[in-house]
This record gives sequence, structure tokens and C-alpha cells, in this order.
Amino acid sequence: MSELLFNHLGGRWQAGTGAGTPLVDPVLGTELARVDATGLDLRAGFDFAREQGGRALRAMSYRERAAMLTAVVKVLQAQREAYYAIAAANSGTVKNDSAVDIDGGIYTLQTYAKLGEGLGDRRFLLDGEPARLAKEPVFQSQHVLVPTRGLALFINAFNFPSWGLWEKAAPALLSGVPVVVKPATATAWLTQQMVKDVVDAGVLPAGALSVVCGSSAGLLDALQPFDVLSFTGSAETAALIRSHPAVTQRSVRVNIEADSVNSAMLLPGEAPGSDAFDLLAKEVAREMTQKSGQKCTAIRRVFVPEALYAQAAEAIGARLAKTTVGNPRNETVRMGALVSRAQLAAVREGLAHRQAQAETLHDGSRHALVDADPAIACCVGPTLLGTREAAGSDASDRVHDTEVFGPVATLIPYRDAAHAMQLIARGQGSLVASLYGSDAGALAAAALELAPLHGRVHVVSPEVAAHHTGHGNVMPQSLHGGPGRAGGGEELGGLRALNFYHRRAAIQAGTATLAALA
Amino acid sequence: MSELLFNHLGGRWQAGTGAGTPLVDPVLGTELARVDATGLDLRAGFDFAREQGGRALRAMSYRERAAMLTAVVKVLQAQREAYYAIAAANSGTVKNDSAVDIDGGIYTLQTYAKLGEGLGDRRFLLDGEPARLAKEPVFQSQHVLVPTRGLALFINAFNFPSWGLWEKAAPALLSGVPVVVKPATATAWLTQQMVKDVVDAGVLPAGALSVVCGSSAGLLDALQPFDVLSFTGSAETAALIRSHPAVTQRSVRVNIEADSVNSAMLLPGEAPGSDAFDLLAKEVAREMTQKSGQKCTAIRRVFVPEALYAQAAEAIGARLAKTTVGNPRNETVRMGALVSRAQLAAVREGLAHRQAQAETLHDGSRHALVDADPAIACCVGPTLLGTREAAGSDASDRVHDTEVFGPVATLIPYRDAAHAMQLIARGQGSLVASLYGSDAGALAAAALELAPLHGRVHVVSPEVAAHHTGHGNVMPQSLHGGPGRAGGGEELGGLRALNFYHRRAAIQAGTATLAALA
Repeated sequence: MSELLFNHLGGRWQAGTGAGTPLVDPVLGTELARVDATGLDLRAGFDFAREQGGRALRAMSYRERAAMLTAVVKVLQAQREAYYAIAAANSGTVKNDSAVDIDGGIYTLQTYAKLGEGLGDRRFLLDGEPARLAKEPVFQSQHVLVPTRGLALFINAFNFPSWGLWEKAAPALLSGVPVVVKPATATAWLTQQMVKDVVDAGVLPAGALSVVCGSSAGLLDALQPFDVLSFTGSAETAALIRSHPAVTQRSVRVNIEADSVNSAMLLPGEAPGSDAFDLLAKEVAREMTQKSGQKCTAIRRVFVPEALYAQAAEAIGARLAKTTVGNPRNETVRMGALVSRAQLAAVREGLAHRQAQAETLHDGSRHALVDADPAIACCVGPTLLGTREAAGSDASDRVHDTEVFGPVATLIPYRDAAHAMQLIARGQGSLVASLYGSDAGALAAAALELAPLHGRVHVVSPEVAAHHTGHGNVMPQSLHGGPGRAGGGEELGGLRALNFYHRRAAIQAGTATLAALA
Repeated sequence: MSELLFNHLGGRWQAGTGAGTPLVDPVLGTELARVDATGLDLRAGFDFAREQGGRALRAMSYRERAAMLTAVVKVLQAQREAYYAIAAANSGTVKNDSAVDIDGGIYTLQTYAKLGEGLGDRRFLLDGEPARLAKEPVFQSQHVLVPTRGLALFINAFNFPSWGLWEKAAPALLSGVPVVVKPATATAWLTQQMVKDVVDAGVLPAGALSVVCGSSAGLLDALQPFDVLSFTGSAETAALIRSHPAVTQRSVRVNIEADSVNSAMLLPGEAPGSDAFDLLAKEVAREMTQKSGQKCTAIRRVFVPEALYAQAAEAIGARLAKTTVGNPRNETVRMGALVSRAQLAAVREGLAHRQAQAETLHDGSRHALVDADPAIACCVGPTLLGTREAAGSDASDRVHDTEVFGPVATLIPYRDAAHAMQLIARGQGSLVASLYGSDAGALAAAALELAPLHGRVHVVSPEVAAHHTGHGNVMPQSLHGGPGRAGGGEELGGLRALNFYHRRAAIQAGTATLAALA
């Protein structure tokens, strides 16, 4: 039987008392480890995090906590090779895709360490200037941001076991709020190993970082009014979380980041073979295949002027055809596996559902697998669908509603820019949209038009071809989240991320008291 | 039969098709008007608000919308006398208490008109400076705030039919977001009359302001992903709202402002009869009796050093004894009625529940009613309870958990400052706490300690005695809301209020595109 990974809760390593759930290599089908949270005293563990971890973190200044993040970075950097091995085995990802998760997480920590250093030796933040309340300036209102007195529970998704932890933990810890992470079971190993390395290195106060692997049963029941909860995953689970009494009755603050049907749009007026056209084709192919399309931010819908439909299909298809799929241990392989047989089945089912309303422009099932047994490996080739009927007819709703969480996207022609905007809006809110064009004015106008429907709008024009950071790549400097179907959440965005972990309060007082705050 | 008040929806005045629910004078028991929303096509009405109202509002700049708020102010000011008459009849409030609602609402509109003027001719807001994403500054991230594409639904409480509308509508309309208000039935008349006056004056675009009076059935079903919902009322209703599919599945953004068990604390070291001591006694008596204690922000728990318990009881009781209770039309009356017989019964029940664990220091039942029939009028005298057992014992939970929504507060002795902080924290999050003392350093330290548990901390020291704005008075410059039991919401706070009605997005682009945004 494989190793049982321990949980870290209440300041100590604890084994679950159950048999455990196996983690499996999605390429070889072998069992790698087991996780189990049966029998943990969650309430006691959460109390320890709040009381010991929270108190110790709040006693530090922002600058001291920033230094703590830098210490975490050093611990993780020293073990990078081990993390890449875990990612290849447990996530089935090629090295470049593992980097997005592992080095992306470390980079995010570094970014918050730097931002935190700039906040200095304070233990709370002033929010704006004092506002006069009386006619004379003797009585004013000063808003402050203070760390919440609870803990931060993260219920995370399987696709980013490293980045998904650190993009949330970095702002939480910098804010002075202890973290409990519940990784998705399928890929929990990397999260658990990272927490283990950091905890064992002793660079964090006791109770500042806990990990519970396995079932999420009971976690929400243990939440208290000043706790916060950040969830990344499916809309179905999000709805369950939002309906829990911790949220509905105890006002636990919740951030939801759900999958969305993200768009890429080539603006009108760009010729086939133009820079903007090629940048679109390149980015679509990259987004479809990176991490086998298992990114909440990946491009799912591709909008091009109707006259360019065939050329766009050809350009994207040509790039997809070059994608070798299979065992990530083989250096010729550019795209590894989906995370599990369950995900493979879901992708196949979703694809069939979508194909009933679309033509198949590039057929992923024709990709031969390299060094991988199709009966075992969770590998699937990239598929580009196309639908000329999405142009407003109700019969083609699926392309706007259904996310296939794999290497699948759909090409959609539009009549004019206004029509494209209408079609994009049918996604009911997404994490990100990208625009490709060469006219700065038209790009800016389209970006503002899409801004209310997206957390991020990524604009690619020829002069940034070598510099832009990618449609699906989440930079810590920018907001991550989106309205509506995307869950309505806000993460990252530089120091904006700290808001979620702070409480804002107005202190109304006389001049002497306000002076004594600082 | 009394007049049936019309609803304004879909740009026209519409009567409900049902018999209607009567609004009653809480002093005289007479029927004043009826409200009914039966048979309204809510979906069509909401679509009209989003499409006609939202489009027209978003086409205006912040400066133009600010001027629109000023026009609303003028319409309301012209009808102030009529509003005072409605308040006296339907809310049973004396003139000073009606002013908090009516003139408070107008002042809040004026404040947002002034703030909006400062935002100038833009149609969206820049949020922070551009952040560099590439090594070279050719690709950067600029956050923007853009008006949400939906509507704002307000489900309001009975205690502030005017202020409760305008404190929400002012930032919503300034943001470019159309408003639908559902006032609490008991006092819907004033809300409906104000909306009628403003709509009939033609100072708003069609669809910008709608009112639905009567049942809230179906309102949430008609919400779409980009709508926002602001609720003020009970924790029970708040939990129902949070559990609705509009919120759990469609990510409708929700703001909840629920009642809370707010605190006032006299700091250690203040002698009986000192300025700070007298300021506490005065403010507690004022807060208990203003609007008959029917304010979510009213003082419910009063903390004093244990040596001052008896003197504090006497000082507060002496002020309460002077409060004449009864018909607000009688000029000697300082405190009018509760809003309804149902509220009167709830207050009496809550008081009995609390008295089982407390002593009665000032007995409101001994106040004779002036010009009011106790068998009809919803009047009740102010009652000060006291409990020496709240000092940590579990037997005295009720004082920290139970809000009696009337002229009732409880005096609680504490041993030292740390003990007082523990007791205040047992309220599990409140809208506001007030501190009374003369030592600026001690006041500032206590304010910061209470900040994570409150949306507002109000500090009263002798030098601001003539200037402070009152514990329970919500100033538009300061945040209104609170964590945990208070609902976790944020309203007002100057321009911060606009965030709720805007979507934040990061626009990642090259220099030329970002320059073209402006």
C-alpha cells in the first residue's frame, strides 16, 4: 500500500484514521500515495490556527511578514526538482506546464514579499484620508484596514496544487491571517509536500499554515464569523458552499472562482496572415494545449470576422497538428495528460455534447499517444470545434454555456464588432477575454466594453507580441476572478488581494485620538 | 377602503391586482393606505430597468449623474412637510426622529452629489496606477472600475423608509446603475411617495428608479448575474436571501446589513460625574429613545467599570425618566411609537426573555402614555436592564446574542479593559461600538482593538462633546456595515460605496492601448 500523507492541523502532523483515498499517476495508472482526513478534530485545529497562528501573525508587522514570505520562497526553491517530479507523476504535466504551477506559485510569493516590504512596519493599514464630519475639523472619520480575527480556509482545485495554494496564501499570510488549505484530492501530493517543507523548515509561526487532505466533510461546519473562505472549482460545488450556514447565517466572507467560458476575439479589419491574426492563432493553440486545457482561464471561444472563419480554422489547426501528446517523461511530448480517468470521461462526454451542435475543425482523437497506453493514460489530443450557428440562434447555446475542461475550443464567426460583443456577453461573465488587433483606439474601446463582463481583459497588439504575458496566465499584479458564471470573486490584483483578509472600519474621533492611531 | 399605492415598474405606474395589505397608523390604529404587487411582470420590469434605465444612466458622466442627484434633492426638499406628515402618521415618530430619516436621506444625496461632481466627466474610473508586467514597461496592467450592467435591487427595512432608500440609491445612481426598491410594507408609504415625486418630476431617465410595494415574492427569481442586491433587515431573512439560486448559482452580488448588538464602553479611569461619564450617560439615553430604539445602530450593551455600575445605572435612568412617551402629534412628547403591534409584541417578548437573565434598572412599563391609548398605540417606555453576570458566564449569553428592537439596553460591568474587550467580542460582530474617555492613547488603542469586530468605532472625548455626530447616526462619509452577526456588508464610506455598483477589471495592454483608454 502507498504512503499515507499526513495532515498538518493544530500545530502537529496527524494521520487520518481511515483507509485513505489513493492518488494515481494519470499516465501510468499507478498508485502514488493516499490521503485521509477521517477523525481529525477540525474545531480544535481551527481554534489553534485562529488563536496561536493568528495571534503570532498579527504581532508581526507587514515588513516582518513579507520577510517570512521570502523565507518560504527559499524553502520552496531548494526543493524545486522534487516538486517537478511530483507534478509529472501526479498531474501528468510536461515540464513547461509544471512550471506554470510551481514557478508561478513561487513568483507570486516573491511578488507579495516585495509588495509587503513596501507596507513597512505597520500592523494595520490606513484606508484613505480623514474625512471631516463636523463643520470644524475637530471630529473626523479615518478608515482603517485591520487583519480579520479568523482564519482563511482554501478549498482548492486539482489543476494548480502549487500556484492555487500560494496565490491565496501569500496575501493571507502577508495580511496576518492564518491559512488552512484543503487541496483537491486527485493532486493533493504537491500541496501537502510544499506545506510539509515549509512547516518543517520552521519559517512560519505555529498554526500559521495547516493542510487537510482528503474529504472536505466538516470543514465549513467549523468556520466562525470572522473566518474567510476561498473556493476554486465547479459552479455546482460553489453553490453548495454558498448555501452552507457558515455563509448564510454566520456571514463568513466567501470568494468564489469558478470556471468560465473565456473568449478570444480578433478585431475587425485584420487580414489573414497579419500580425494580429497570427498572434490570435498562436495564443489560441497555446491556451488550448497548456496543461491540456485544464485552466479556468483557458480560451474556450474564439471569435473571428465571418470572412476569416476558414483561414482561422486552418491556422489554428495547423498549430494543433504539431502538438505531440503523451507521456510527459518523453522529451518530444508537448502536452501531457488530463488529471484523471474521471476528467477524461468528462471531457469526452462534454466534447460529444458540444459536437452535436458544432463541426470538428481539428480532431484531437486522431493524435497518436507517445509512450502512453490509451487504455490507461488520461491523454487526449486537442480538438477545435466550429459553429457558424452561434451567431445568435438559441440552438447554439452550448458553446456559450458549456465548458469542456480540456484541450477544446470553438471557433465562432461574427458579423461586426457589436455582434461579437453580444456573443461574448452570452458567456454570462468570464474570468478573462483577450483581444487581438493593431488599432489602439478600437482595442481600448473593445476592452472597456468587455470590462463589466470580465475580471481581466488581455490585449495583444503587434508591438507587445514579445512582451505580453499570455491570455490564460494569471499575473499577481492583475485581478483574477470574474462576475456571473465565473463566480463573482476577486483575487490577486497586487495589494487589492489584501482587502479580502482585512476588515475595513471607520474610526470616528477627535484630532488627538486619530493622531494617536499612528 | 384606503388608497391603493401604485408600483412604478417598466417605466409606468401599475396597480397590483390583489386586495392589498393595509398600512396602519401605529398610534391611532387607523388604516392609511394599501400596497399590493400582485400580478406585476417583474421580469419585464427588470429588463426595462436594465436596458432603458441602465443604458441611459451609463451614457451620462459622473458629473452629469451628480447633477441628477442634486435635482432629486430639490424635488424632495420641496415636499419635506408632506414627508414629515407621512412619517408621523405611518411611522409614529416625533419630528426630531422623522428628521433622521427624511433629512438624513436628503443630506446623503447631497453628499454623493458633491462627491460625484469631483469625479468629473468620466464614464468609468481608473483604479490605481498601471503596473508593469514585462521587464520593459511596454506591457502593463491598468485596473478600471466600470458600472455593472445590471440593476440594483434594494429590499429595505421598516425603520428608515427615506434614508434607507437614498443611502443606497445615491451611490447606485451616481455609479450609473438603475434602482428597484422594495420597501418594508409597514412603512412603504414614504418610500413610495418620494419615488413618485421624483419620477413625476422627470429628473431621472425612464427605468432609473422603480418601486415595488408589497410582497417580495418573485423579486429574487428575476435577478440576473450582473445585478446586485442590497438587503437591510433580520438575520433570518438575510439567510434566506443568501440561499436563493440568484446568489448561490448566478453570483448576484449581495450586501447584507443585519441588526447587531452594538456596544458603548466607558473606558477605565473615568470618575462618576466626569465629562466622559456624563457623555456616555447622555448618549446611551439618546440612543435608546431615538426612533424608539428602532435603529440597527442603536446602543444595546453598555459597558462600565464594575465600581461605576450603580452610578451609571442612576445617571442613565435619570435621563430616561424624563422621556415622555406617546402621540408624536403632542409637542410635549419626546418619543413616539414602535412601528406596529407586531413589533410591540416582539419587543415585549424580547424584553421578558432578557429580563429572565437581568435586573430591571429603569422600568419602561411605568411610563404613562401621553395622548395615546395603550390598547391601540404601539408605544412603550424605555427600559434599562443590568446584569452583573454577563462577566463571562455562559448563563448570560442572551445579552450578547439577543437584540430587542426597541428602547431597551443593558448595563454590564467589566473588571478591566481586556475583560471589556472580551465581552464586546461576544457580540460576534456589530455595526458600531462607541468609546467614552479622556485619554487619547487609550481611546486609540481600544478603537483599533475593536475595529476588526465593527464597521465603525465612534470615539467620544470631552473636546468633541459639542461636535461628535452620535453613536447611532450613520454619516455618509463613514462605512456602514459590520462583520459576522451584523451581516458582513459595507455601505457608504464616501466613494467606497461606489465599489458595490462597479465591476473591477484589469486591462492588460501595451502603452498605446492604455493611453487610448482615457
